[in-house]
Amino acid sequence: MAARKSKATPNPAQREDGSRSKKTPRGGTDLDARNSAADDLTVRLIRDSAQVVHQHIGQQRKPDLAFPIRSLKNVRYSEKKGYFEIGNQKKVRALTVNTVKSFAQTLRMMGLSKELVESNDFATKRDAYYQSKNWEEARFDEQTESDAVMDDIEAMFSLQGVSREQLRFIPDEHGGAVSGRLIVLDPDRETGRVERIDCTRFGSGAYSIPSLVEQLSFETDAKFILAVETGGMFQRLQSHKFWQTADCILVSMAGVPTRATRRFIRKLSDECKIPVYAFVDCDPYGVSNIYRTLKVGSGNAAHLSQFFCVPQARYLGVTPQDISEYELPTHPLQDVDIKRAKDALKNDPFFKLHKPWQQAINQLLQMGVRAEQQALAKWGLNYVIEEYLPRKLAHPEHFLP
Amino acid sequence: MAARKSKATPNPAQREDGSRSKKTPRGGTDLDARNSAADDLTVRLIRDSAQVVHQHIGQQRKPDLAFPIRSLKNVRYSEKKGYFEIGNQKKVRALTVNTVKSFAQTLRMMGLSKELVESNDFATKRDAYYQSKNWEEARFDEQTESDAVMDDIEAMFSLQGVSREQLRFIPDEHGGAVSGRLIVLDPDRETGRVERIDCTRFGSGAYSIPSLVEQLSFETDAKFILAVETGGMFQRLQSHKFWQTADCILVSMAGVPTRATRRFIRKLSDECKIPVYAFVDCDPYGVSNIYRTLKVGSGNAAHLSQFFCVPQARYLGVTPQDISEYELPTHPLQDVDIKRAKDALKNDPFFKLHKPWQQAINQLLQMGVRAEQQALAKWGLNYVIEEYLPRKLAHPEHFLP
Repeated sequence: MAARKSKATPNPAQREDGSRSKKTPRGGTDLDARNSAADDLTVRLIRDSAQVVHQHIGQQRKPDLAFPIRSLKNVRYSEKKGYFEIGNQKKVRALTVNTVKSFAQTLRMMGLSKELVESNDFATKRDAYYQSKNWEEARFDEQTESDAVMDDIEAMFSLQGVSREQLRFIPDEHGGAVSGRLIVLDPDRETGRVERIDCTRFGSGAYSIPSLVEQLSFETDAKFILAVETGGMFQRLQSHKFWQTADCILVSMAGVPTRATRRFIRKLSDECKIPVYAFVDCDPYGVSNIYRTLKVGSGNAAHLSQFFCVPQARYLGVTPQDISEYELPTHPLQDVDIKRAKDALKNDPFFKLHKPWQQAINQLLQMGVRAEQQALAKWGLNYVIEEYLPRKLAHPEHFLP
Repeated sequence: MAARKSKATPNPAQREDGSRSKKTPRGGTDLDARNSAADDLTVRLIRDSAQVVHQHIGQQRKPDLAFPIRSLKNVRYSEKKGYFEIGNQKKVRALTVNTVKSFAQTLRMMGLSKELVESNDFATKRDAYYQSKNWEEARFDEQTESDAVMDDIEAMFSLQGVSREQLRFIPDEHGGAVSGRLIVLDPDRETGRVERIDCTRFGSGAYSIPSLVEQLSFETDAKFILAVETGGMFQRLQSHKFWQTADCILVSMAGVPTRATRRFIRKLSDECKIPVYAFVDCDPYGVSNIYRTLKVGSGNAAHLSQFFCVPQARYLGVTPQDISEYELPTHPLQDVDIKRAKDALKNDPFFKLHKPWQQAINQLLQMGVRAEQQALAKWGLNYVIEEYLPRKLAHPEHFLP
């Protein structure tokens, strides 16, 4: 193992900063130094924002905070960057009699983030909401309110290259499962001692991705990452050790991949320079929700895409072409499928830019059917391992973009 | 570690059988011998059923198969057994002109199970459906049909102590996450070499439970298993190594626990003789769906309860009492919550039998509120680790049944 170690691809915060931390690193490794540098930057950015507010008050001027507008209308997509980017439109929250509560809440939420970084801890959206119950007049009455404030702060700092995870806000949802030719290095949050987690050694089980993956680094000699839609297919590939014969890393997305799963794949692929192939159902949902979200992000969370999407991902299958070539059992497209496919062709910047995708989606609409990845079981339960995947993997140049 | 090894609590099939396999065990361990014995029994039971059908045909009698009725009306609950049991009502499927297709499909599905056991493989419901596409006239047109046939076969063999997993039918869903003072032993399906999976060594990540857990055994010196409702709370306990200070095993259920998660907890608790404590939200859903399903099973899948429920589980919290004692932030009960609570009191054999639960649910209805487990964050993000759980764990005798 360990042919390729994760290279010090600087994380986004470091790109902005460039400097190394002056704090004593927790464990003395490069990794710690990199994480400390990112943490220092996060704290400095929070402090800077607060100081501007403080100065304005000192000068008897009305302080304000400007947040990017989070909506599909404020999104850019270029093939070169490879992900949905948030645009330039902003909303300004000035301190007035009417906004005093939400203004105070925003500052307290930024203060919570600073505390979390300094104590090396984290909070989910739920945690943050309940924390606020002790903020007296600044407490939130509903979690939807605190969620919106957290999203705004996240969007504001994303412009400076800081991700939500660097602010120490983590998702409530679980991460995906991983197995195969990969060692994950995870420093202990207290002692800094690095745990080496060998993903070939989980038997029929797997490694479950933590909610926060920024601190991880990797060693691998795998040739590619295979991101699999369903738990059932992942279990088949894992139990038959497909990763051994194919020299790869398997990731179970279990539907639309969670944020931690996407960030994990992105970081792993970036740092170890290995390609990512997606293996999902051939239907408008698999293509335009699961694959598109994995690759370029989603419209209403474009401020996250720079960190979470995997622009290098390519689509192995199941393709409309596969349906006829492998004579797969199909289901007819429902109205909702047809609507989703037509929407993708008409409104989605990603599909509008990629001709091969327009052809594939049109082909699917003409055929009027969809097929699940497990439909390959028609030819035998392990046909997918023995025939389908090896044939596909011999020609990555045929994968859809 | 390794104070307690999993004892050879015979698995259900062995209880019926008692004999050891005559096959050469795959890896030569006790575990393999036990699994082989279970496999031999499964194959023999399938063969016996088929032979009866064959004999009847030879004698020019109409063959039939009898399946237990799967519905809430055919369910028994006794505190002594501790789980919902399927009753004695049966439906008989005789071979006639009208039933010839479903009769053939049932036999083919039993044949598939036999093949899976003999090749040491497995199939999900989806897999089985697509496999049938090669059964010519016996192929299924819809997955709902093949699911129902699989459920019937499963219910029929459950009367003889054989679980769906022994038939090698596995769920499509993912398993929960585990960390803490536990070593999982998992024999390789081809070589029989046993992988030792140390659940203290996953950093901030965790062990992801496989879909099929029958082959696993355990070593542990943990004092209890803590089954946690939300991914966010699990991540907090895991990242702060709560399992180390509390000498325990953490399991993330992520809502209603999947079948693999329940079977894993049950097997671990049975074989290592350690108690199971549930830590869920204080609302009618947490109590009557998550906890009740974990402990005694669900009404419409009672034929599974003997294998999947965890009758030894007890309810640590959050209790209605905790809401007032810890002054937790609450949400008002919605109509759907109130209906669920009243249904539980009136119709659920489990709650009808346990007075302390009736009192607790009535108290919740009177208070008119619910509270999430993360509401404890009001007192500090790690209050749950430093105060709440230690106080609770000092008095397991106060846990709800």
